Amino acid sequence: MLGRTYEHENCSAARALEVAGERWSLLILRDAIFRGLTRFSEFERSLGLATNVLASRLDLFVAEELMELVPASGHTGQLEYRLTAKGRDFEGVVVALAAWGDRWSAPDGPPIQFHHASCGGPVTVDLRCSGCDRVIQAGDVLADPGPGNRSGKEFRR
Amino acid sequence: MLGRTYEHENCSAARALEVAGERWSLLILRDAIFRGLTRFSEFERSLGLATNVLASRLDLFVAEELMELVPASGHTGQLEYRLTAKGRDFEGVVVALAAWGDRWSAPDGPPIQFHHASCGGPVTVDLRCSGCDRVIQAGDVLADPGPGNRSGKEFRR
Repeated sequence: MLGRTYEHENCSAARALEVAGERWSLLILRDAIFRGLTRFSEFERSLGLATNVLASRLDLFVAEELMELVPASGHTGQLEYRLTAKGRDFEGVVVALAAWGDRWSAPDGPPIQFHHASCGGPVTVDLRCSGCDRVIQAGDVLADPGPGNRSGKEFRR
Repeated sequence: MLGRTYEHENCSAARALEVAGERWSLLILRDAIFRGLTRFSEFERSLGLATNVLASRLDLFVAEELMELVPASGHTGQLEYRLTAKGRDFEGVVVALAAWGDRWSAPDGPPIQFHHASCGGPVTVDLRCSGCDRVIQAGDVLADPGPGNRSGKEFRR
């Protein structure tokens, strides 16, 4: 485990932010997941960020097993950063962020639209209750300590 | 509009990260949404972060209308940071981040469990297709330029 940004936080959202909450991290994952980028030079061109920042983010993704650094196909001698299942699983976070931005910060309409590959329909992010199988409306979610809780902090609404 | 962290990014996920992608921002929103915190001192105690950092994050939330700074109830003369609908709408992002952390970084089980307030059932984050109304499996989402797109960047899988 690398140094923890949110050391005293006993929370899975904090753990997720430790591997993907630095500046540019989630946009690198977005480009890997939705643009299929794998090469250092591709990320650099797409995002226009400083080389040392990009290298540091990709290093962390490899160390935390969100990506694997493997020889590129075609025997070119180049390396590529390939998403693992753990990295690809940030798909839902990226779509949830984009959904918020589409609702509150997209006066010209969504810059990017997410479609269901199988049928072409538009993708929404739902909070769903596994108990009653309903889509949960905003503000109808409660948080409680779970089995991994050590903080003893109170939750309420 | 404040200075943009991701100025050349024509993407709603990048817009969302500009208001909530700084260190601590999403954990402050988590505490406001799920712990009901509203006072500066409550956030400070809960998160243990530096006063100037907390002040800067809360200022940005007020400027971007995720929170309103209003007199606290009870005529105490204190002020509180109250979530707006725009701020509360980060609920889905926080739950999506926690879901990732629960799957990949919670060896003792989820530290926090999210429940449906109405029936008590466990909350899941689903990507759902509005076309065929199915839950979308990982890797079955395509991204395409939408009406607000100005970048001309390619998307593929």
